[in-house]
Amino acid sequence: MSESELLIVYRVQASSDEVEARADALLLEQTVELSRRALHDPGLRGLTVGRVVAIEAMGEDDFRVSLAQPRSATADDPAQLLNVLFGNSSLQPDVVLESVTVTDAQALILGGPRMGLAGLRRLAGAENRAMTMTALKPMGLSAARLAALCHAFALEGLDFVKDDHGLADHPFCPFVDRVRACLEATLRAAQSTGRRTRYVPNLIGSPETVLRQARIARELGVEAVMISPMVVGLPVLNELVRRHLDVPVIAHPALGGALRIQPRALLGQLFPLYGADAVIYPNVGGRFSYSRDECDAIARALRRPNVPIAPALPTPAGGIKADKVGEVLGFYGAETMLLIGGSLLESPDETTLRRRSRQFVEDVHRFPYGN
Amino acid sequence: MSESELLIVYRVQASSDEVEARADALLLEQTVELSRRALHDPGLRGLTVGRVVAIEAMGEDDFRVSLAQPRSATADDPAQLLNVLFGNSSLQPDVVLESVTVTDAQALILGGPRMGLAGLRRLAGAENRAMTMTALKPMGLSAARLAALCHAFALEGLDFVKDDHGLADHPFCPFVDRVRACLEATLRAAQSTGRRTRYVPNLIGSPETVLRQARIARELGVEAVMISPMVVGLPVLNELVRRHLDVPVIAHPALGGALRIQPRALLGQLFPLYGADAVIYPNVGGRFSYSRDECDAIARALRRPNVPIAPALPTPAGGIKADKVGEVLGFYGAETMLLIGGSLLESPDETTLRRRSRQFVEDVHRFPYGN
Repeated sequence: MSESELLIVYRVQASSDEVEARADALLLEQTVELSRRALHDPGLRGLTVGRVVAIEAMGEDDFRVSLAQPRSATADDPAQLLNVLFGNSSLQPDVVLESVTVTDAQALILGGPRMGLAGLRRLAGAENRAMTMTALKPMGLSAARLAALCHAFALEGLDFVKDDHGLADHPFCPFVDRVRACLEATLRAAQSTGRRTRYVPNLIGSPETVLRQARIARELGVEAVMISPMVVGLPVLNELVRRHLDVPVIAHPALGGALRIQPRALLGQLFPLYGADAVIYPNVGGRFSYSRDECDAIARALRRPNVPIAPALPTPAGGIKADKVGEVLGFYGAETMLLIGGSLLESPDETTLRRRSRQFVEDVHRFPYGN
Repeated sequence: MSESELLIVYRVQASSDEVEARADALLLEQTVELSRRALHDPGLRGLTVGRVVAIEAMGEDDFRVSLAQPRSATADDPAQLLNVLFGNSSLQPDVVLESVTVTDAQALILGGPRMGLAGLRRLAGAENRAMTMTALKPMGLSAARLAALCHAFALEGLDFVKDDHGLADHPFCPFVDRVRACLEATLRAAQSTGRRTRYVPNLIGSPETVLRQARIARELGVEAVMISPMVVGLPVLNELVRRHLDVPVIAHPALGGALRIQPRALLGQLFPLYGADAVIYPNVGGRFSYSRDECDAIARALRRPNVPIAPALPTPAGGIKADKVGEVLGFYGAETMLLIGGSLLESPDETTLRRRSRQFVEDVHRFPYGN
């Protein structure tokens, strides 16, 4: 692509008679938002009026439409970029956003993952294997109870133990108490195992709250955090990682179920572009709906970005059973972090939880790198 | 509803054999995110585990499921509330969020519209009639060119002239220059007409950018602003109106096309709950997809909130023709602001643009209040 144009790909439902006009209307809707007869100024071409690059028939009344939009229309702003990609058109039922390729210069400005796949592998000391993560839940437990769980997981050698994405600053489990107690639990476990598990708190709230939580987490010694970009706002994620945070961010897909944006585009391309280092997404066959092909597409998009940003770490989750580790890694390969929560937490007692955790860790560590 | 529970209504696709289990899984997914067998602590009931209130058959394999979720699960946080409403479940294809009723106490905390329908009518001096709005576009024009358009519209007595939602801080039209020039245009027009049009700039960017734009806009004398809550993040809107802004906010639906949240719930309930005073939405029959019933439901939800917040102003838009004003107001009644952009801006010359603007204003002013 040219350095002055973004390439944006949509799937459009239209008849073959109508698709050219539909593609042109789609092009205009994202920027000038007026019909061609209202565009009196020829200077708009290339400034805010892009071009239809290709229209490809994919099936009956189903077309892939590729648009080139001028970078200048985005003002290089993380929020305005979303308008150019899928602002008004998200409201039209015949269009799905399929793929986004920003210009190299925009990728540099947005920045993408700061640590990414490589940084998380270094942090976990997992240079030659896949990684393990689990979650602290259910919401409703006290900080002390969650810290006890965190301690059990850390004793068994999980790489990362994250908050559930619904853990906020609840009175029954205040953020500061939780972070302090869980960090302490990982340090205590490290004294007996000689191996460090990273506790990953969930940052959630309006921007001032997220910033305050980020500051507290760093002061206490947290080395990675989790954020749900669609809940707090994608531009908030970007501002946070560009200006305020020096540890990796693991992104959670909550509220991201806009079926009109393909998971590959939202989770595989936009989340890392805005700065996520690892992206959690629902694995095929769990209690969510993503197909095998979609999961594969997300993982590939994360590891091989289509713009010059660092690779991010695919983190499949959502109902993976602890005894299916080999199968899941056989599908994804070792450049992966597995997030298993329920299958460990549903253990009837702590002995079972620890045994299952240990098995999870061993199975992942045993998986040969390069597969 | 009880003061300790939110009522959340979903549409669920399930067989009648399965719907009870599906409703229970939906209940747990939004808060504790574990199956019942992993909930060892009875203290969670009422703290973070809610209850299924009703399951109502709506059609074949189509159920309305009403859940009561504990207010305590939301931590009274604007971001965490979104998780409880539709965090993980947004990723499941068999569920649509239909309606949200937070507790009265939560409504007070989130605050809803500060000026709302009544405040905007006062600001426009439109105590007994519907209101008029138009948009400055296309993106790509300079600040001076947009200000000239703003001047023409103001001369013809539009109540509000808003930026297009894609106008950011573009180098070809910097925010400060645009706001200054457009405000000046409305003041100059007021000197000859004796009537004041309000220019409404678009605030867009990551949180620091939005805050800076809000501050500049207020310093220059702006009396209302526009924001796209799904682009900047709903919690950002809430923080802005609760802490930093003393003028009304008009909300734009860009990026809001998550078909899995019904428009009535997202635009009619959540946007005002988070603080929007007026909500722009695609009118039936335009270039978007909303049905007559959906538009009616949005307008009703805005005017008659289901929680104790101020009514907000329905602002239908998106392809309304200037010669259809009577028809549209016949449908909505006068407690409405009509937003017409393209149909005015597609005028071949300024004389036509002014004539059409004047006609738009006269048609709205003539529409009898009480209809």
